[in-house]
Amino acid sequence: MVLRAVNADPLTVIHVGSAEVIKCKAAVAWEAGKPLSLEEVEVAPPKAHEVRIKIVATAVCHTDAYTLSGADPEGCFPVILGHEGAGIVESVGEGVTKKIRITQGKGLMPDGTRRFTCKGKQIHHFMGTSTFSEYTVVADISVAKIDAAAPLDKVCLLGCGISTGYGAAVNTAKVEPGSTCAVFGLGGVGLAVIMGCKIAGASRIIGIDLNKDKYAKAEDFGATECISPRDFKKPIQEVLVEMTDGGVDYSFECIGNVGVMRAALEACHKGWGVSVIVGVAAAGQEISTRPFQLVTGRTWKGTAFGGWKSVDSVPKLVTDYMSKKIKVDEFVTHTLPFDKINEAFELMHTGKSIRTVLKL
Amino acid sequence: MVLRAVNADPLTVIHVGSAEVIKCKAAVAWEAGKPLSLEEVEVAPPKAHEVRIKIVATAVCHTDAYTLSGADPEGCFPVILGHEGAGIVESVGEGVTKKIRITQGKGLMPDGTRRFTCKGKQIHHFMGTSTFSEYTVVADISVAKIDAAAPLDKVCLLGCGISTGYGAAVNTAKVEPGSTCAVFGLGGVGLAVIMGCKIAGASRIIGIDLNKDKYAKAEDFGATECISPRDFKKPIQEVLVEMTDGGVDYSFECIGNVGVMRAALEACHKGWGVSVIVGVAAAGQEISTRPFQLVTGRTWKGTAFGGWKSVDSVPKLVTDYMSKKIKVDEFVTHTLPFDKINEAFELMHTGKSIRTVLKL
Repeated sequence: MVLRAVNADPLTVIHVGSAEVIKCKAAVAWEAGKPLSLEEVEVAPPKAHEVRIKIVATAVCHTDAYTLSGADPEGCFPVILGHEGAGIVESVGEGVTKKIRITQGKGLMPDGTRRFTCKGKQIHHFMGTSTFSEYTVVADISVAKIDAAAPLDKVCLLGCGISTGYGAAVNTAKVEPGSTCAVFGLGGVGLAVIMGCKIAGASRIIGIDLNKDKYAKAEDFGATECISPRDFKKPIQEVLVEMTDGGVDYSFECIGNVGVMRAALEACHKGWGVSVIVGVAAAGQEISTRPFQLVTGRTWKGTAFGGWKSVDSVPKLVTDYMSKKIKVDEFVTHTLPFDKINEAFELMHTGKSIRTVLKL
Repeated sequence: MVLRAVNADPLTVIHVGSAEVIKCKAAVAWEAGKPLSLEEVEVAPPKAHEVRIKIVATAVCHTDAYTLSGADPEGCFPVILGHEGAGIVESVGEGVTKKIRITQGKGLMPDGTRRFTCKGKQIHHFMGTSTFSEYTVVADISVAKIDAAAPLDKVCLLGCGISTGYGAAVNTAKVEPGSTCAVFGLGGVGLAVIMGCKIAGASRIIGIDLNKDKYAKAEDFGATECISPRDFKKPIQEVLVEMTDGGVDYSFECIGNVGVMRAALEACHKGWGVSVIVGVAAAGQEISTRPFQLVTGRTWKGTAFGGWKSVDSVPKLVTDYMSKKIKVDEFVTHTLPFDKINEAFELMHTGKSIRTVLKL
């Protein structure tokens, strides 16, 4: 994932090819499994094909917590995490960048080096973004220019979760009017899937979650009913098949649990049902099912960033938000100052927040 | 599967609601794992919504052998197997049949009874067809009326394997012109997939099989190259990803091996690759992969009878054969008299035949 929602207009930027190092505040993850530490860091100027950004707002996503936990095999420490961010271009380097995936996975800029230093030690980048810092440096191709009037403390969410869930419904599954959908997991991504299903005209949207506190919000977003697997003796896929006279047309797994991924597939109607994996499973885990499930006409798919192309699509998603076609504000349950970043992680872990936005 | 290719015209039928029992020859499977036994059987007249058919030709398919082996959990003995058959309507019952799947799986007619008797013992039906008999009784909705000029000893193959493989390419995967395809398993179904990929305009069709004796025929059908996993040290999916600069656009598993199903999926290009399961795995076996394979944009599907609707599609497939759009004759490697049915199974098991047609 990349820093997608940035108000970038090189024409209005003061520093081009600036040699100046910026000292600023950042939340450093020194090691896995420990809280983030607010530190003064040095942010080097952008090199060729790079952009230095003043981050205005960033949200906290489960993927940040996943890497912080130490479970991510690509996790590099020390690191500045964060990837749902929005900001303003501070300065730009010169010259086109390609194939950033290899270096990005190693916590490095495309040239193989780093721009962050703290206490004399080089700090890794994260997902090519590192938005948990007042200033960050990213590759030019990781930046999307958006409507200058958009509130950055809201549209930062379009950098990951909302776009992913919404796109899973409208791009990957291509939900059709009148269809029946099941959404497993009613966190931020699940709510965005529900929003997408509703916009696509689904007539029945069933939310599934163990936590019944999430049902009211899910219904605000468009769920027509919500159920808990704990209320049934049968496997949830059998419950759904019975509820829907043979299975749902579309199902979405928004948790990252491989057992639920199987249930989501098997809850689909034979002949035409489509199941989309949206959640991220822990490293090394595998999905499985009997091939009969596919041979009888079900389709198993997955989605990354909801099938959107970052640089082109994020500005359009921002426009859709500004014209009230899609919701964003409703996902923000908490807004905190940057200093409270560990509190934001806590709110997420305890299921009390959908998204917490940090203002820098 | 059903008796799809039958020259059925009730207007020309002599017997309607006939009460006559026909004595004829049939190949009876008395028990699992034993050769078929040619016996004189009594075939009861068709009841309401049923049709009695004089079988003219039938082919032998792996699914018959699967059930005969005893591995099929739905297998009922004694039984008359066979499902790739063609014949002429002998007599019809009266009055519309629905939901035959439940009784069909139990080896019974829709009314829960049987029409075959041998040595005073009732014999099970198979797949609603039982074409290994000079006469059989099937549900009216299991019969497709075809061009009266079609050679029944060829078009009987359109009742299962050829239609399944061809449809997997053109209906399920929807192969596009210029695309790259991989076909795992070069038996009759695999060859039919290759034929479908070629007709759809694929520019590269890679056949995969351990048996190199099958490569020449596969190339006749349209394979542009054939490879054996034994010739490589790496897993075959890695070989294919390297051969095709990132993976194939479409892959097809035509064996029924769950390990190969995984390889076929993982040989697809991320972002858009589609893998179709065509082969039938043994009961209880499961497919698995890392969800990352789907999240990065691959689609996993399956196909049953190639996505064709039997009664409507089989007559059209016969027309496509008569107009030389699709091949059928080229799949028939052996033609034998009905008495040699066990020899036909032997030719299939040893990989010497693609399809053996039995003339009754």
